[in-house]
Amino acid sequence: MIKLSLVGIGSGNPEHLTLQAIRVLEGADVILLPRKGEDKSELADLRRMIASDILKTQPDILEFDYPVRDASTPKYLDGVNTWHDALATIWGELIAKNVAKDGTVALMVWGDPSLYDSTLRIADRLLARGFEIAVDVVPGITSLQMLTAAHAIPLNTLGAPVQITTGRRLRDHGWPEGVDTIAVMLDGECSFTSLPPDGFHIWWGAYVGMPDQILLEGPLADMQAQIEETRAAARAQHGWIMDIYLIRRV
Amino acid sequence: MIKLSLVGIGSGNPEHLTLQAIRVLEGADVILLPRKGEDKSELADLRRMIASDILKTQPDILEFDYPVRDASTPKYLDGVNTWHDALATIWGELIAKNVAKDGTVALMVWGDPSLYDSTLRIADRLLARGFEIAVDVVPGITSLQMLTAAHAIPLNTLGAPVQITTGRRLRDHGWPEGVDTIAVMLDGECSFTSLPPDGFHIWWGAYVGMPDQILLEGPLADMQAQIEETRAAARAQHGWIMDIYLIRRV
Ligand SMILES: C[S@@+](CC[C@H](N)C(=O)[O-])C[C@H]1O[C@@H](n2cnc3c(N)ncnc32)[C@H](O)[C@@H]1O
Ligand SMILES: C[S@@+](CC[C@H](N)C(=O)[O-])C[C@H]1O[C@@H](n2cnc3c(N)ncnc32)[C@H](O)[C@@H]1O
Repeated sequence: MIKLSLVGIGSGNPEHLTLQAIRVLEGADVILLPRKGEDKSELADLRRMIASDILKTQPDILEFDYPVRDASTPKYLDGVNTWHDALATIWGELIAKNVAKDGTVALMVWGDPSLYDSTLRIADRLLARGFEIAVDVVPGITSLQMLTAAHAIPLNTLGAPVQITTGRRLRDHGWPEGVDTIAVMLDGECSFTSLPPDGFHIWWGAYVGMPDQILLEGPLADMQAQIEETRAAARAQHGWIMDIYLIRRV
Repeated sequence: MIKLSLVGIGSGNPEHLTLQAIRVLEGADVILLPRKGEDKSELADLRRMIASDILKTQPDILEFDYPVRDASTPKYLDGVNTWHDALATIWGELIAKNVAKDGTVALMVWGDPSLYDSTLRIADRLLARGFEIAVDVVPGITSLQMLTAAHAIPLNTLGAPVQITTGRRLRDHGWPEGVDTIAVMLDGECSFTSLPPDGFHIWWGAYVGMPDQILLEGPLADMQAQIEETRAAARAQHGWIMDIYLIRRV
């Protein structure tokens, strides 16, 4: 059976690779490497650099383009599902053509494959289509861990729960019930500005773990405008941005 | 200034060490290594093995005993705070005696230092007492990531939030508002048995990432008794257990 390994590579710092990630990537016959689309080109570059500079073996690298995501699909989930279907077709064709029946193929997954990532869902589609693959997951350091490490803060307060959520969700539903800490990802719109500013502290980071890392933190009331401006300027300068933040009720 | 590095080492699998964790540990003059108390002896053994077999340098290893935690303190938090104070005193004395003014001292932290871990709080106490240290955090693979990787499941469903919480909290407050997925840690009492069994799926793991890893998953209604029995038997056999689980509304 073909083995498909989804290998978490951390979120920008190549030193966050684990010994297991390196071993599994080195042992792969083929590595599928997404070129563009969702991923900004720096992110593809990091994957190329890992393959060429860190691995001691040279698996075949197959680069492929992401299908274009159809933002016009009326329901958001339909758009995402169609897109995952299209990606499963691309993976399936690449694997069928390039991987032997008992071969191994690996994908480098940004951060950890469990966290707001679609590769496990795409692999499930291959299984549902009858592909004979064994799916194997290698954990990786998430952007959330990079954020808390960079600020040297705990995720939770003593014995208390934490909610991990998205910008869209924070905007649409407000502060969630029952938690005093939230970690927000996938936020293109500074959704923290939708909160009443008093009584919160924010720890924000962009390009966390990468050479251009930016960190800001302080009372939300003081930081809202500053983070919005910093984010807009950084985005204009780089052409793209990835940011993440933690907010705690104080 | 003395540099104090809190280095996440993953939660049982030495292959989950990152390149950064290895570099920082190898560069330390002194490594503080907790011997017993909270930690089971296998956990201290893993740390010793990392120091002796994985690091290419030989920092001074200073083993120390945990103070005994006072469970009789009326308020839970007071007990924990007193215990953190006592630990800060031990760290402070060991550092003052054994680390040069511009030296580096490291601690191997189970999993990731941000997640239900007390080392950042203890370091804060040293800072509050006027110790001249710079605290530095190295992220590590958490037991939650080991769980989702071992089961090959995503943490979140598409675009949806997740709550990370404790067994105590689940027992005392029931299923939290506003989320369909919870990850539960620090649960000595199979608190999933307090949920109404229908409409949930559970993915459970004990000793995740370790040689004795046990995984169970299925509809909560079918699994409650089986997990309780498996957990009790494993605990009796090993003398200790660490387990973690994810539950999703289905
Ligand atoms: C599609 S999700 C992938 C998350 C990834 N699987 C992980 O474990 O971190 C992308 C989101 O992760 C966050 N993110 C990923 N890398 C980041 C980085 N280096 N700096 C800041 N945020 C990052 C951002 O919130 C971004 O919108
Ligand atoms: C004090 S917390 C430390 C968590 C750690 N900092 C992390 O990142 O996973 C201890 C709890 O973590 C979970 N845990 C840690 N290691 C584990 C393992 N190898 N298998 C299962 N659960 C584990 C259990 O829920 C346990 O009660």
